[in-house]
Amino acid sequence: MTKYNIDVTLTQTKKEKPNASELAFGKVFTDHMFIMDYTEGQGWHDPRIIPYQPLTLDPASMIFHYGQSVFEGLKAYVTKKEQVLLFRPDENFKRLNKSNDRLCIPHLDEELALEALKTLIQVDRDWIPNAEGTSLYIRPFIISTEPYLGVSPSDRYQFIIILSPVASYYKEGIAPVRIAVENEFVRSVAGGTGSAKTGGNYAASLKAQQLSGTKGYSQVLWLDGVERKYIEEVGSMNIFFKVDGEVITPSINGSILEGITRKSVIELLKHWGIPVSERKISIAEIKEAYAAGKLEEAFGTGTAAVISPVGELFWQNEGMSINGGKTGEVTKKLYDTLTGIQSGMVEDHFNWCIEVK
Amino acid sequence: MTKYNIDVTLTQTKKEKPNASELAFGKVFTDHMFIMDYTEGQGWHDPRIIPYQPLTLDPASMIFHYGQSVFEGLKAYVTKKEQVLLFRPDENFKRLNKSNDRLCIPHLDEELALEALKTLIQVDRDWIPNAEGTSLYIRPFIISTEPYLGVSPSDRYQFIIILSPVASYYKEGIAPVRIAVENEFVRSVAGGTGSAKTGGNYAASLKAQQLSGTKGYSQVLWLDGVERKYIEEVGSMNIFFKVDGEVITPSINGSILEGITRKSVIELLKHWGIPVSERKISIAEIKEAYAAGKLEEAFGTGTAAVISPVGELFWQNEGMSINGGKTGEVTKKLYDTLTGIQSGMVEDHFNWCIEVK
Repeated sequence: MTKYNIDVTLTQTKKEKPNASELAFGKVFTDHMFIMDYTEGQGWHDPRIIPYQPLTLDPASMIFHYGQSVFEGLKAYVTKKEQVLLFRPDENFKRLNKSNDRLCIPHLDEELALEALKTLIQVDRDWIPNAEGTSLYIRPFIISTEPYLGVSPSDRYQFIIILSPVASYYKEGIAPVRIAVENEFVRSVAGGTGSAKTGGNYAASLKAQQLSGTKGYSQVLWLDGVERKYIEEVGSMNIFFKVDGEVITPSINGSILEGITRKSVIELLKHWGIPVSERKISIAEIKEAYAAGKLEEAFGTGTAAVISPVGELFWQNEGMSINGGKTGEVTKKLYDTLTGIQSGMVEDHFNWCIEVK
Repeated sequence: MTKYNIDVTLTQTKKEKPNASELAFGKVFTDHMFIMDYTEGQGWHDPRIIPYQPLTLDPASMIFHYGQSVFEGLKAYVTKKEQVLLFRPDENFKRLNKSNDRLCIPHLDEELALEALKTLIQVDRDWIPNAEGTSLYIRPFIISTEPYLGVSPSDRYQFIIILSPVASYYKEGIAPVRIAVENEFVRSVAGGTGSAKTGGNYAASLKAQQLSGTKGYSQVLWLDGVERKYIEEVGSMNIFFKVDGEVITPSINGSILEGITRKSVIELLKHWGIPVSERKISIAEIKEAYAAGKLEEAFGTGTAAVISPVGELFWQNEGMSINGGKTGEVTKKLYDTLTGIQSGMVEDHFNWCIEVK
């Protein structure tokens, strides 16, 4: 029991942990999970840690029909000194509540959510892998569970946290990926749900991703849904370019996700004195910079990969090779610094990490 | 067992059926459900009818995170001669496969789906209410069930059909509703998922619906997400206007749903010799028609309400009262004819109904 009366029921049958070399992304889950219910009139209640187990839901539950749901993603690392660190978890729960606003889901107590997460990690402490580049991926999510087919906000929900030990996104260090600009499909538009972390945005992205995959590209670069000119995101990451010495990224406009890695990158660049700006960026501008030899680097940012260098950008029947297809200097420095801070190898001047004791 | 080897397991404990006077929409479900699994490499398999029961799903199942899902809605009626009729069910399963395309979900055998539905209805035949205006609402849906947190199409799915006895949408006959034009939020945009019947579209609509509800409007009228000028849908229905003797409705543009009631209305109007056209319609054009005294009728079309008259349209701080807030003549005739055909009271010249024997 904790300050928030989080009830803990331990499993009787512990699962076997995977070897570090077998780790993939998001396929294996730990022994326990956190769960809490919301009932209209009663609020959030019964926070509890239980053995990892299936959810039992009426087939009429709204989550199966109308997609009312939100989620977050973050990571825990174990340091060489055996400390367990969380990277900016308060930002995740703040954003979860922003997503809740858009999806008409009742707010969570952010402090309770953090306490729940810390307690769960303590219970499953042995599951955090310690090989270089590995971490514990954390997935908090909320689903609508009222068994009702009317289109309206649900009157009950479940908030759940599950944990998955994961390998480094890039097994052999970071490697640049090939990206195609998407001209047919749109991820989101202002007035839609693009700035919220909700299932529908990801469901909408699958088709473009699948088609680009068949053409040899690993992700798509999304353009805005109105003019189809301005850059939004890459795959499910935010995107940055280094042009003529300045780092630029699309400004928050209502249809892109306010990434926490994005925010951290901007803060790091400012700290280093590297010019960085958030503004509208057209794909034509990037092409011009490329033609003029000024497109120096490009990278995506997100929790899963942290920093993902872009080696080639394909648009209008032409591939733009960026930095000779190799990881750029600033890109590499950002990756090393961020993963270093997250894993306790680089000093955390910003106080971004929270220790789980 | 049927041609498709649909296995049937009957319940041992039948539920009590609600009285016709207690029926609401989508809250009560019948004794049985249909379910079929998809596994990559194996295809759709194990079609079966089982007692209505909760689904048991790993908390990492994709449906809880990335919203990869589709659904349909249709109705069965029992006629005075005790025939059971389905209204254009082939159109629903055709559209389900179109939605599957957009959401990267494997196609269903439409004939098997129809056979499954008929078999399920036969099993739960006694649940179809027979009071005037009542019907059996049918909800086929597909959910992604792979327990994996990577953003990619699932490698397994479940196709499920559940049934719910429902009252007439308008307990005291059809009654016009007040609608507000939505200026802030957007339902979908070309290149998005608006033409597919998938959860994310409905999740995205909740916030606008909730806000308009607090202002006394029962639905919102969606404008296009690009220019914010052109009419798309109303709530989760298609929209029609009668202007100066002609019935008009927004043309299919990639962001609105291709409603089956919409299609049937167009076919009926043509049959009656009433001018009808599908084209781009701006909200300004409707306002002008109103000012000129030419906005004669307006109504939404959808499976749940069939035809829903619009009594008032609110835009730019002004309410436009349509036909004095009363149900228009063509609106009423469409409602009477469609519900008449669906329930076997009006002759079905179009062969829209399929009898379940």
